Formats: sequence, structure tokens, C-alpha cells
Amino acid sequence: MSIEPVLARVDRDLDASLKRLFEFIRFPSIGADSAFNKDTRACAEHLAKDLKTMGFDATVRETAGQPVVIGHRRRAGKPHVLFYGHYDVQPVDPLDLWTDPPFESKVIELDGRKVITGRGSCDDKGQVMTFLEACRAMIAETGDLPISLSVMIEGEEESGSTNLPPFLEANAEELKADLCLVCDTGMWDPNTPQITSSLRGMLYEEIIVRAADRDLHSGMFGGTAQNPIHILSRIVTAMHDENGRILVPDFYQGVHETGDNRKAQWEALGLTEEAYLGTVGLKYAAGEKGRTLVEKMQARPTCDCNGIWGGYTGEGTKTVIAGEARAKISFRLVHDQDPVAIQKNFRAYVESMIPADCSVEFIGYKGSRAVQVREESPELKKAITALKAEWGTEPVILGTGGSIPIVGDFKRVLGLDALLIGFGLDDDRVHSPNEKYDLKSFHKGQRSWARIIAALGS
Amino acid sequence: MSIEPVLARVDRDLDASLKRLFEFIRFPSIGADSAFNKDTRACAEHLAKDLKTMGFDATVRETAGQPVVIGHRRRAGKPHVLFYGHYDVQPVDPLDLWTDPPFESKVIELDGRKVITGRGSCDDKGQVMTFLEACRAMIAETGDLPISLSVMIEGEEESGSTNLPPFLEANAEELKADLCLVCDTGMWDPNTPQITSSLRGMLYEEIIVRAADRDLHSGMFGGTAQNPIHILSRIVTAMHDENGRILVPDFYQGVHETGDNRKAQWEALGLTEEAYLGTVGLKYAAGEKGRTLVEKMQARPTCDCNGIWGGYTGEGTKTVIAGEARAKISFRLVHDQDPVAIQKNFRAYVESMIPADCSVEFIGYKGSRAVQVREESPELKKAITALKAEWGTEPVILGTGGSIPIVGDFKRVLGLDALLIGFGLDDDRVHSPNEKYDLKSFHKGQRSWARIIAALGS
Repeated sequence: MSIEPVLARVDRDLDASLKRLFEFIRFPSIGADSAFNKDTRACAEHLAKDLKTMGFDATVRETAGQPVVIGHRRRAGKPHVLFYGHYDVQPVDPLDLWTDPPFESKVIELDGRKVITGRGSCDDKGQVMTFLEACRAMIAETGDLPISLSVMIEGEEESGSTNLPPFLEANAEELKADLCLVCDTGMWDPNTPQITSSLRGMLYEEIIVRAADRDLHSGMFGGTAQNPIHILSRIVTAMHDENGRILVPDFYQGVHETGDNRKAQWEALGLTEEAYLGTVGLKYAAGEKGRTLVEKMQARPTCDCNGIWGGYTGEGTKTVIAGEARAKISFRLVHDQDPVAIQKNFRAYVESMIPADCSVEFIGYKGSRAVQVREESPELKKAITALKAEWGTEPVILGTGGSIPIVGDFKRVLGLDALLIGFGLDDDRVHSPNEKYDLKSFHKGQRSWARIIAALGS
Repeated sequence: MSIEPVLARVDRDLDASLKRLFEFIRFPSIGADSAFNKDTRACAEHLAKDLKTMGFDATVRETAGQPVVIGHRRRAGKPHVLFYGHYDVQPVDPLDLWTDPPFESKVIELDGRKVITGRGSCDDKGQVMTFLEACRAMIAETGDLPISLSVMIEGEEESGSTNLPPFLEANAEELKADLCLVCDTGMWDPNTPQITSSLRGMLYEEIIVRAADRDLHSGMFGGTAQNPIHILSRIVTAMHDENGRILVPDFYQGVHETGDNRKAQWEALGLTEEAYLGTVGLKYAAGEKGRTLVEKMQARPTCDCNGIWGGYTGEGTKTVIAGEARAKISFRLVHDQDPVAIQKNFRAYVESMIPADCSVEFIGYKGSRAVQVREESPELKKAITALKAEWGTEPVILGTGGSIPIVGDFKRVLGLDALLIGFGLDDDRVHSPNEKYDLKSFHKGQRSWARIIAALGS
């Protein structure tokens, strides 16, 4: 099959595909807010209907939360691919910071680039449509796809995909495939595609340290009563040594050293601390001593206190000794680190720092393991070749520091390896006002997917 | 002069004196809340009028804030005493936790004791009236007071006495006296009077640590960006060593060791950690190792973090690295510690812990030195004898851990030593709903003041 007619079709149909994206964005499918349940469901139904027009056997499926859209376009004897994305979007407040209405998408000029405006224009409606429009062009031009394709587009990604793992388990037979494609990540830069080779896992814990059974007057009790803020500060401080190494016992079990070859590739990216951190007003990379910036960004585990509070936090002075203090602490995990073991060791470590007269309570949130893409798979090689053909440059193969826990569930429940390819850019403002998606990402992204699908089917 | 007829008059007039206290409490003189400015001023005017009925040359005097009530009843050749108290009261919210209306004072039975209800019943309207009713009985019975008396009752004690030091400075000539009496402290227990021999000073600082110029995603920046909560936790932790000693350089300059004699007196009080801390759900005294409980309560300096906050403090999880984090830190000072020097050393110490890429800002609040009552003064001896005669037991001479900064200003501006005697009890719930004052405190307090005034004038 020659890909050229399909690419020409993508080019020719760009305006029509844009109109379909605008229509998809128009649904305020804020899945996390039940006030939008009707719109969220309408969005799912719209999507299923659209899939049917492309010849998919598509259904809107119930979960305990928002529905999942499932579509199959099976071809016996062909490699079976499961495409994953989400149709729910983040809330839009503060609304007054939006220059254009968040659900009336259009193309505007921004800093010399053409961009698609609106909530979900990138995350993830734009990325989902980038893939589906590639399929549509291919079907229109060649009459079929060269692969057996199932799509699963969920409505709760922005609220933690709570109901998707049970859905996977209940429908494992139906959803089994050879490979999973995920289109929810980004490019290295506006001209260089990226294949995301790993995702960090996550462990999130809340700690409550309690001392006196009420807030105390520091004149009466200063110097005699335990101050839970002091104890909590000691705990947060005791998470790292002076070289930035994490001190939770056995924490580094399952962390692997990166090979020299891979490290050299990262060095070749030429990313400087000043370039990476300069965008947020910083200059010098913190964290573990003796590790390179790119290594720290995605191949090393971390521990961060994400929130701390206790005592008087209003204006002026109040001489109080708090009865309790709280902190939220999260770990990003890599390679084979086990969140269950780390949670256990973390809690024991914290408990060892609680003096008599004080107590600690933990609130645990769901942990997830890191995800590693198989490095030497034929599918990965095909995707590399396809992306290079489209963009004229070798794609960057690099992990991301973030976490997409559901990808771990694909592996665990369905035994599926994932290929994470996306066309978002660092300045897309996903989750913020004025989210956008470059028209070039949408256009060349479709062409990229067409090439990848053709390669996977060959 | 025999004191017995005056004491009999106090006993006889108790109901009438109670009625006058109820009337005083009826004004909602919440000086810190400008919505109550009219009531606060009406309260001051009521008080001045009442002083006039007792033969005082009384006036309501303006400041930049709430007015001060000044009254003089001078007698040439007699020791001149300045009595200090305040007519402003704390706010009453949460109102629904009050069993009886806060400004409709009455006597009720509580745990077998008769108590006076209402906001200000103890702090400080009840204590002020305890003194003034003693004067009234003495004047009624003997025609005069044996001392030259000035009273200064302010309206901003609960909001930091902001405008009183300039008032003292502007009226120093008029207010000069031989001794200052302060009636805003407590008894050792319901049967044992106390003379407060020292007040701790105070230094209060707010720290803001800043890193990135916005909140960051911990997936993107975890392991590479400075986390200001970690830095702030290190700072709070670095305030104390493992023995509870404060690590700010030169912090202990001006702190004196307590003599063995005095320590033995404290030991004889028989106060156990369990008794003192048990009331707030604790058992073991924290703070400096190797110091006794009573020493730590009032003769040693302290450092407490009174509030800390940064990052995500809502429900559930948010994987954010905060742009800034804040803490409020206060020091209680003793003896000759200098708050100005300590502020300078504290700030330099904190700055030494701020890494490149981060910055720190300080918000400083007014500091005050500790106040020490002259131990061997004849006035102190007279007060001890008078209190022993009334209560049948030696009064406890002990410092308090709290601070009344204005007492330091009396010394600084007017050169006045203070004698701090009060009849509040630990369970009076000052500053809280259901504030009360024991009828016994009001009654025997008047008798105590009558004896003290007689002794001071002899």
C-alpha cells in the first residue's frame, strides 16, 4: 500500500476534520463535575455515533461513573491494536482568564502559529481526533485499515480513571489485543516528535501528626508541650539526605542504573538546566547530586511534599501551638519499585519519628508502578521509521516524569505493552485557561498516525 | 487604720458591686472590631462617669484608636500608685457555643461553684472591678484612700495595645507614679493567690520562602526544581537541637540561671507534668532536656512554629510543587534577652539555609523584652503579707510564660516597677465561649485589694 494518497487525503480534508474536532469540543464534558453529567454523556454518544460512520461497531458502555466508548473494527489475521484516549476534559475556571470561549473552538493566529483554541483542544479531544481522522482518511482512501482496531475512549481520565480498571477486568476478553496505542503525551519540541518510553509510578500519602487535644496558648505551653508542626517538619526534612537521596529504608530497591549508551543519547539532546528551569523562574537543578538533568527528569524516583499546613495561617500574629499538623507527600517511582513495599517502609519510618505523647494517622491514596515500554520491539522500530519519514528528523525516545496509571493497568489486566505517541507541546496550557493545540500538530499528527498505522499493518 | 470595717463593707456591698459589674459587662466593647466602636466608646464613658462618683478626676482621652480612661484621686505625701487594666473584650464568636448570652452577665451555679458569666467577666472587666470595688468600699467606709491613686484603663489590650505606648510618652509627666499595679493575671489555684514575678518577652516573625515563579507539576519538575516546603521544613527543624536547645546563634545571651533557692521553691509547688499537661491531653513535658517543668514554663526562652502552610491543602491528591511556602515563628524571651539582636541573628541564620534559586522574605512584628518584678521590694513584701492574711496561705511567687508587652513600656517610659496580682483561674475560659469569673475571686479579690491598698498606704 502506498501511503501517499492517504496523506494527500489528510491534507485535502483538513478543514472538514477541523470542523469535526470543533463539534467534539463543543460538548462541555467535564467528567469530574456531576453538574455536567448530561453533557458528558452526550459527548460519549456523539463519539460513538461518529465511530459508527467510520464503520466501527461502537457502543456507549456503563461504569459506576462516566460511560466508556468502545468501538471495534476487526480484521481477522491482522495485528490487533487497542487505541486508548479520553473524551472528558478539565474544568474551565477561572473562566474570566479565557480570551476565547472554552467550548467554542476555532483557529486563531498566536505568535505566528495557527492554533486551535478551546478546552480539550489538545487534552485529549484534539489528540483523539488526530488519530481518528487518520483512520477516517485511510478508510476513505483505501476502503479499509491494514490493522484490526479497537478503540476505548474513557470519561474519567481527569478524575483518576477510577472506574476503568474494573471495566478492563470485566471486559478483558473483548479488549485483548497485541499492542496498545496511547495518544495523550507530547512532542520533544515543535519540530521533533517523541515516543514516550517510560512513565513514572506514584505513591501519595497524607500524614496527620497530633499532639495536644486542642490548640494551645504558646505563653502557657511554649517549652513544655509537643509542637506537631516541629515534628512534621522533622519528618519532611528526614525524607532526603544532604545529597538529595531519599532516606526511606529500602527505597531504591528496584531502581536500575541507566546504561551509558542511553545516557549518551540523553546528553546529545543538549537540554540545559537553564533552558528547562528558566521557563519557571529557576536556574539550577535541585534533587540528587551526581545525576544529569534528563536522568533526574524521568529515570530517577523522587519524593516531594505537595502540601503542608497547621496552626495559624491568617494575617498577623497568633501565638498558638497547634493540636495537629498535616502534610501530603508523594513519591514518583521508576523501573521496578513496588509502591506497596514503599508505603509500608515509609509509614514505619515516619512512625519511628513520632515521640511519646504524639500520634500519627495516614491517609493512603492509590499507588501505581512505573511503566516501561519494551525498548527493542518491532512496533517501536516501525513507529520510529514512520515518524522520521513525516518529520524529517529522528524522534526522541525518552521517558516522562509524569504518571498515567491506567497504562500500568493495561499491562496488568490485559498483558498489553503500550506505545505512547502524542503531539502536544509544552506551551499548550493543558489544565489551564486558554488551552490550545497547534494546527500543525493536528495536521502532521494525522499524517504521522497514517504512516504508523500503515507500518503496523505491513 | 483597722481593715476590718472595710472588709465588712465589701461583704455587705457584694450584691451592689455585682450589679455594677453586670452593668459594665453589658457594653459589647469589642475594641478590635470597628463595628463596635460606638459601644466601646460608650463603655469608656460609663467607666469615667463611675470613677467620678468615687471622687476621681476622670476623663476619656483620645488616641489614634480606642480611647483611654484616666482617673486621678491624688493625695499629697502618700505613695502614688498607677493602676492598669483594660475595658475592651475579645470577640464572642462562635456565638452558638455560649450557654448564656455573653453580654447579659449573671451569677450561676457551675460544678458546685458560683460563677459570674459573660464576656469580660474575668478578662478584664471583672478584674478591674475587683480592684475598683475595693477602693469604693474603702472610700465609703473611711472617707478616703490611704494612697494617691491614678487609674489607666485602656481599650486596645486585646488588639496589642498599639496606641498606648505613644499615649504614655505624650502623658509621661501626668502618669508618673511610684508603683504600677496590674490586675490581669491569675491565681495559682482556687485557694492559693499568686503574685506574678515575671513575664516573658516576645519576638514574632513570618517567613516566606520562594522558589519557582508558579506552582509546578511534580511529574514535570519533581527531582529537578527546588521545593520551598522542604526548605522551610529544614529551617523549622534547624531551630532546635536534639536536646530542645535553640540553635539561633547567640540566642542565650542575656538568659540567666535560676538560683537553687528559687528552684527549690518551684519544686515545692509539687506540679507534675501529668497534672499540668493532662488538661490538654498530654503527659510528658517536651522542650529543653535537663530543665524542670516549672523552669520551662516561665524561666526559659522558647521557639515555636505557630503556623505553616504551602502547596495543596484541600481534600484528596494534587501533585504540585509549590512556588512558595510560609511559616510563622515566635520566640518567648526571658531576663535580658534582646529581641532586636535576636531578630537580626534569626534572619541571618534563616538566610544561611536558603539555596541558590530560592529567596526568603521576612515579615517582622513588634518585639518585646521580658519583664522582671523587683524581688526584694517593700511593696512586694506588703502584698505577700496582705494576701496571706486574706487567703490563709502564702501566695505563690512565680513568673508567667505569657507576655504583657505594655508592662515593659511602663518601665521604659515611666520608670515604673509593676506588681502583677490577679484572681483569674485556669478554667475561666478567657478568649473562649462561656467565659466566667468565680464569685469567690470577685469577693475575696476585693478583700485582698483592700488589704493591699491599706498596706501600701501604711
